[in-house]
Amino acid sequence: MSIGRDDIGQRSETVRRANLSAIVRELHAHGPLSRSELVARTGLTRSAIRGLIGELADAGLVTESPAARLGMPGRPSPLVRLDPGGAVVIALEIEVDAIAAAIVGLGGHVFELERVDRPRGHSSLDDTVADLADLAALVRSRRPPSDRLVGVGAAVAGIVRRADGFVSMAPNLGWRDVPLGGRLAGALAVSVPVSVANEADLGALAELRRGAGVGETHVLFISGEVGVGGGLIVDGRPLTGAAGYAGEIGHMTVNPDGAPCRCGSVGCWETEVGGGALLALAGRPRESGRAGIDAVVSEAAAGSETALAALDQVGRWLGLGLASLVNVLDPRLIVLGGLFGRIHPYVIGPLTSALDRRALPASRALVHVVPAALGVDAALLGAAELAFEALLADPARWVASRETPAELATA
Amino acid sequence: MSIGRDDIGQRSETVRRANLSAIVRELHAHGPLSRSELVARTGLTRSAIRGLIGELADAGLVTESPAARLGMPGRPSPLVRLDPGGAVVIALEIEVDAIAAAIVGLGGHVFELERVDRPRGHSSLDDTVADLADLAALVRSRRPPSDRLVGVGAAVAGIVRRADGFVSMAPNLGWRDVPLGGRLAGALAVSVPVSVANEADLGALAELRRGAGVGETHVLFISGEVGVGGGLIVDGRPLTGAAGYAGEIGHMTVNPDGAPCRCGSVGCWETEVGGGALLALAGRPRESGRAGIDAVVSEAAAGSETALAALDQVGRWLGLGLASLVNVLDPRLIVLGGLFGRIHPYVIGPLTSALDRRALPASRALVHVVPAALGVDAALLGAAELAFEALLADPARWVASRETPAELATA
Repeated sequence: MSIGRDDIGQRSETVRRANLSAIVRELHAHGPLSRSELVARTGLTRSAIRGLIGELADAGLVTESPAARLGMPGRPSPLVRLDPGGAVVIALEIEVDAIAAAIVGLGGHVFELERVDRPRGHSSLDDTVADLADLAALVRSRRPPSDRLVGVGAAVAGIVRRADGFVSMAPNLGWRDVPLGGRLAGALAVSVPVSVANEADLGALAELRRGAGVGETHVLFISGEVGVGGGLIVDGRPLTGAAGYAGEIGHMTVNPDGAPCRCGSVGCWETEVGGGALLALAGRPRESGRAGIDAVVSEAAAGSETALAALDQVGRWLGLGLASLVNVLDPRLIVLGGLFGRIHPYVIGPLTSALDRRALPASRALVHVVPAALGVDAALLGAAELAFEALLADPARWVASRETPAELATA
Repeated sequence: MSIGRDDIGQRSETVRRANLSAIVRELHAHGPLSRSELVARTGLTRSAIRGLIGELADAGLVTESPAARLGMPGRPSPLVRLDPGGAVVIALEIEVDAIAAAIVGLGGHVFELERVDRPRGHSSLDDTVADLADLAALVRSRRPPSDRLVGVGAAVAGIVRRADGFVSMAPNLGWRDVPLGGRLAGALAVSVPVSVANEADLGALAELRRGAGVGETHVLFISGEVGVGGGLIVDGRPLTGAAGYAGEIGHMTVNPDGAPCRCGSVGCWETEVGGGALLALAGRPRESGRAGIDAVVSEAAAGSETALAALDQVGRWLGLGLASLVNVLDPRLIVLGGLFGRIHPYVIGPLTSALDRRALPASRALVHVVPAALGVDAALLGAAELAFEALLADPARWVASRETPAELATA
């Protein structure tokens, strides 16, 4: 069999789009690269790289500058870098007691970021959407109008249908069957796509691209504040499940005779390791939230036996649940995010003991447990990554339509 | 960018190999297909299909026959079918109290199958390898010498490194760090590749290709006899984990204060739902194995309250663990294999209640629970599928080397 002449034109266009995507993804993930490095990373020829970089430069997505010689023989290879203002996204995050908004440029540069606490009981859908629209307007107002907005991403502590940002359940916000994606698109009055996903999934994505998981392909990200969520990366791809609901690790049953959970079940992992459990064990009101947890950590640092015992117990339950997940998923890396990143020094001991006892030796030997590198902003930065996904997958659409970004929303 | 002339030769060969693979996979999965159906399923042109079928026919892998007209206008499209004797594999299975061997032809035709019980305590590595070699010789002796053997696959109830068939742990067989793949290759005296994998993973593969999971892309297969294992299919692919150890669902902790498990932990799911747990609940010796379980099912059918209560309790624990897995993995289909397939009618009620109570509604609404379609032979048939994998991935190697199959072992 040979490839017919008429195939080549079509394939050539498909290949061009895939190659533009490969170049933008490399620059987005790794930062500025020389043309030689792009040749090595993409497997494309030097002349193909030159042509594609030219297209991306014409579209305002990349700039080139002479590179230093670095002691190598031969002509220095120009350094290619993304123009962070050439494509920006709005990233949003909804927590039970805080919201956040950021403007992030292609390549991951955070231009603006605002996080504001909200009193409990102000998390109705209407309040939340209005507050987020105000916060987004604030961060946008600080940027020049020449920024080219290409997408909006939002992280929410709930169970989200990826296709349309429909939140079927967010027990800690008190939401059920909420069309969050559509409501945000309306309130923000933007014509670019608005994507919504679970905060733990997005935290995992951000840690994988820019944090503790860079270069890893099998990662379990566990994130907690009030609720506990998980983001699973398998073979380098997010494990989303049949309908996008996978990763609800906080609702594994770990204690059949345990406490009632907000989801309606009993003895969920969240009831033993969530923020409320830690606060109750430490003798603080369950509603004291992040500030209460910070106080428990301070007390532990000062040697409080009550605080240390509470953290020890949470650590043991953390290890028990993680052992089950190690046996089921065989990850190489476990990243402790949110609350668990902050208490990492106090829980890693009992956590490790429980993992050693309960995980199968073959899987246990291969897995490392580390705190998240991006701290409290992991999910917000993941929302930015989500918002960039359409551009990364097919930059050719943006190259072709530089002057008419509004059209993209209807594509 | 355009495709250079020198690229086309290489791509053409790569494309040819991929196309041969696509055709053989379609015929292997779906049975005889007309040339027109192959055109529709592979997206290849009619003339490309004709050429590739010719190559496969010359290699003795497929035959063509005139198709009936089926009331359609136009010339009938010839029906293409695999020659089951054109490529056969030896499939092996190692259970605690039984072993099995089969000869399976390309396309899944089972030519020969033998399963023999073994007394407990006869499952040392040496005994097992010798017994399997004898059983394999028996089933081979019934086939003509013209059969072209292309691979050996083995299913074992243990934790297996796929790369070389090294069994790091098979607690119910009492094995640790056993080079099973190498030992089988030596004892069988074959020159074709010998592949080994976990029995539940292989049960899942077989149910996906030929059983209850045909057409599904997100499947959780749970298999149990003495131990409990799982095979996970995500986006149509097996979830193997970082090192091939994923799917050890029997060692999720479901009861932190429960019974000691053979793996060294406490309260593993296996201790509540495995064959031993059911037998103990029903007042029978844990060692009575498959025959004991069959007796419990017979007693339940006859109305024994003890047997029904034992099955009810196993059903509740089954539902509890499955709910955790539904929340973590969001599968579309759960297939109950082995022991769980046989007790399905007695456990589905309490199982469903526990699932309803503990799985998150969004994921719960989408998942169905069905008994395995392949019964006791699922893992053995999966071992055959594993053994065919190298041929399915690149039939061109076999097309080119028909007369020298022995060379393949060293490729």
